Amino acid sequence: MSAPQPVDAPAPEVVRARAYLSRVAEPPAPALAAFVEQVGPVEAADRVRRGAVPEKVAAETAARRGVDRAEADLAAAEAVGARLLVPEDQDWPHWSFTAFALSGIAGLAPPVALWMRGPGRAVELSERAVAVVGARAATGYGMHIAGDFAAGLADRGFTVVSGAAIGIDGAAHRGALGVEGPTVAVLACGIDRAYPSSHTALLRRIAEVGLVVTEYPPGAVPARHRFLVRNRLLAGLAGGSLVVEAGLRSGAQRTAADARALGRLVMAVPGPVTSGMSAGCHELIRAGSLLVSRVEEVLEAVGRLGLDLATEPARPERPTDGLEPVQLLVLDALPARAARDTRWLTLEAGVPAESVRPALVELERRGLAEYREGRWQRAARKRSAPAEHVGTVAGDQG
Amino acid sequence: MSAPQPVDAPAPEVVRARAYLSRVAEPPAPALAAFVEQVGPVEAADRVRRGAVPEKVAAETAARRGVDRAEADLAAAEAVGARLLVPEDQDWPHWSFTAFALSGIAGLAPPVALWMRGPGRAVELSERAVAVVGARAATGYGMHIAGDFAAGLADRGFTVVSGAAIGIDGAAHRGALGVEGPTVAVLACGIDRAYPSSHTALLRRIAEVGLVVTEYPPGAVPARHRFLVRNRLLAGLAGGSLVVEAGLRSGAQRTAADARALGRLVMAVPGPVTSGMSAGCHELIRAGSLLVSRVEEVLEAVGRLGLDLATEPARPERPTDGLEPVQLLVLDALPARAARDTRWLTLEAGVPAESVRPALVELERRGLAEYREGRWQRAARKRSAPAEHVGTVAGDQG
Repeated sequence: MSAPQPVDAPAPEVVRARAYLSRVAEPPAPALAAFVEQVGPVEAADRVRRGAVPEKVAAETAARRGVDRAEADLAAAEAVGARLLVPEDQDWPHWSFTAFALSGIAGLAPPVALWMRGPGRAVELSERAVAVVGARAATGYGMHIAGDFAAGLADRGFTVVSGAAIGIDGAAHRGALGVEGPTVAVLACGIDRAYPSSHTALLRRIAEVGLVVTEYPPGAVPARHRFLVRNRLLAGLAGGSLVVEAGLRSGAQRTAADARALGRLVMAVPGPVTSGMSAGCHELIRAGSLLVSRVEEVLEAVGRLGLDLATEPARPERPTDGLEPVQLLVLDALPARAARDTRWLTLEAGVPAESVRPALVELERRGLAEYREGRWQRAARKRSAPAEHVGTVAGDQG
Repeated sequence: MSAPQPVDAPAPEVVRARAYLSRVAEPPAPALAAFVEQVGPVEAADRVRRGAVPEKVAAETAARRGVDRAEADLAAAEAVGARLLVPEDQDWPHWSFTAFALSGIAGLAPPVALWMRGPGRAVELSERAVAVVGARAATGYGMHIAGDFAAGLADRGFTVVSGAAIGIDGAAHRGALGVEGPTVAVLACGIDRAYPSSHTALLRRIAEVGLVVTEYPPGAVPARHRFLVRNRLLAGLAGGSLVVEAGLRSGAQRTAADARALGRLVMAVPGPVTSGMSAGCHELIRAGSLLVSRVEEVLEAVGRLGLDLATEPARPERPTDGLEPVQLLVLDALPARAARDTRWLTLEAGVPAESVRPALVELERRGLAEYREGRWQRAARKRSAPAEHVGTVAGDQG
């Protein structure tokens, strides 16, 4: 209560209560989340401290309830330019977490608060967001695709949400930053930690232009289970999740499972079936996830209906496009060298005699047939010659 | 009627009639097929010759009805070791073509007869068959996959049906031949032609151990539209079609469309999204075709129910498999170097005190924890170290 608060800012005691609660239980803490929802953060913190809570809440909080480092944690966050965002704040991304309760899955408990660093507003950034996730041991192919898709999404105003890990995550963040697009990193450790250390500069850059987010209190180490628990926030903050490369048993698949449980769209990029790093993606597609091969297909799937519809991929145009069956038969019958009359062509093509001349006229109009002294032959240009010596023309697939 | 016929062999006049009919109309000839079905091949041939046929049949046959080369065609076939298989023969693959009429699509007319070369019996070979098709301009990746999948299918007794073209088709036939498995080549030209010429030896080998098939009479050239028309026979003769590589507009996609219209299963192999030769496969998968990444997945899809079920792909096993959440939390809390007591671990893990000791016992049993002079620490072996210096353990995806 020392300094005047901005209008609508949450009360300091609410922030302090949630700071305490964010350390007192190891996420996900579904019983604590429900209890806070029920009695409010200030009373919840008070009763947790005193141990005056229902049995399930006690199980989640008994070990650490005596540890109150709320003030120290808030100070530690402030020291690195971070702050604690609470659900009472107007920047809280409520929509991102409404599906958590609806999922009915205990592990999908919402965070009690979010420590964050950066100029971005969580509620805005999560409005149009895609989680781009994948393997650490990514291949060059996966890194290229992740950067490419992330750049394409960010370029269209979509926030690229990822986990700041080495591999696909890093490529995704960098792809977004490369086009000066919005990106959010969700950590599995304290906001004051740079993990992995090789991404220290990357995390600093994200905090300068986007947002770095975590539910873990300052100082928390990136323990194994926290990566999996964190993945639910990636899935929740984004409208859809895109898995770029993933092994058969991977954190990215966990993110996808969480996303599916939250009713979010799951997309996966295919790759060579000879690559173990694409095996998880293929498994996801076989299980019903959407295969995406171009960023437009992602936009179509997650974008606002009608605005981001994928355009048809460019298809090779051919002079034979739209020809009627009879015209195609006559075209195939046309000899490449020695011109023939319509009687011969009728026999060779096996079509009614009266339809041969109209067909020839259309073929000539398209530059496919040539008329020479009462006889017809194939026009030399524009038609690709067959690769082999037998036959007159060749299809795409023999 | 010169030589005695084997029991149940179709009458010579039936064979001659169908030989005539196989040249008189350019396939597909739905009106002719229906007419033959209605009045029988001998009367149909006689009435076509005289022009005494319904209007639609006349449109299909008027141009060539005066050309009767039945005897010459049968002789030409015999000269290259081929024969004419007719629906009246017990070797006729009736099942393969029943779906043609049911599809209600005019272009999917059954052949009036099949010219064939080789020791294989069509009715047997088509019983368990997969069409393996794809691009001519295949990549090394596609060629490898086609050969690999074909070998796997043929090795399990499935007939590999393909079109003998360069690229994927050739790799598929060779993959089957390499394991001495059954394979059938369906041509878009006469049985006496070797197209493409570079596959002359391959076609000879298929004719020695499998079957080369075509609906086109001897001497017919491989015209462009014939490849597309032929593709319906590929789709029909096989229980499922597997597209290995295909451009966005390709014959393989036509085969897939025919297969779908016939109620057959369509499968596609994914590849790099950066490869145009996989774009057609990805489009097929997006439209509902089954993604297959291993031959076992093909077998599961087309195989006899319950016998060829794909086994789960090998997944990396971990000593942490099956650990309960509390045990995982305790494991994560265990320091790697300085051992700690259970009180410290309770606080660090954030779990109920009474559950810490049972968790430690289980972790010790699995070789994950070590007990030393009243304190616990992480066991050194079997745990992979994190790639980065911060934190204690690392997940698959950060």
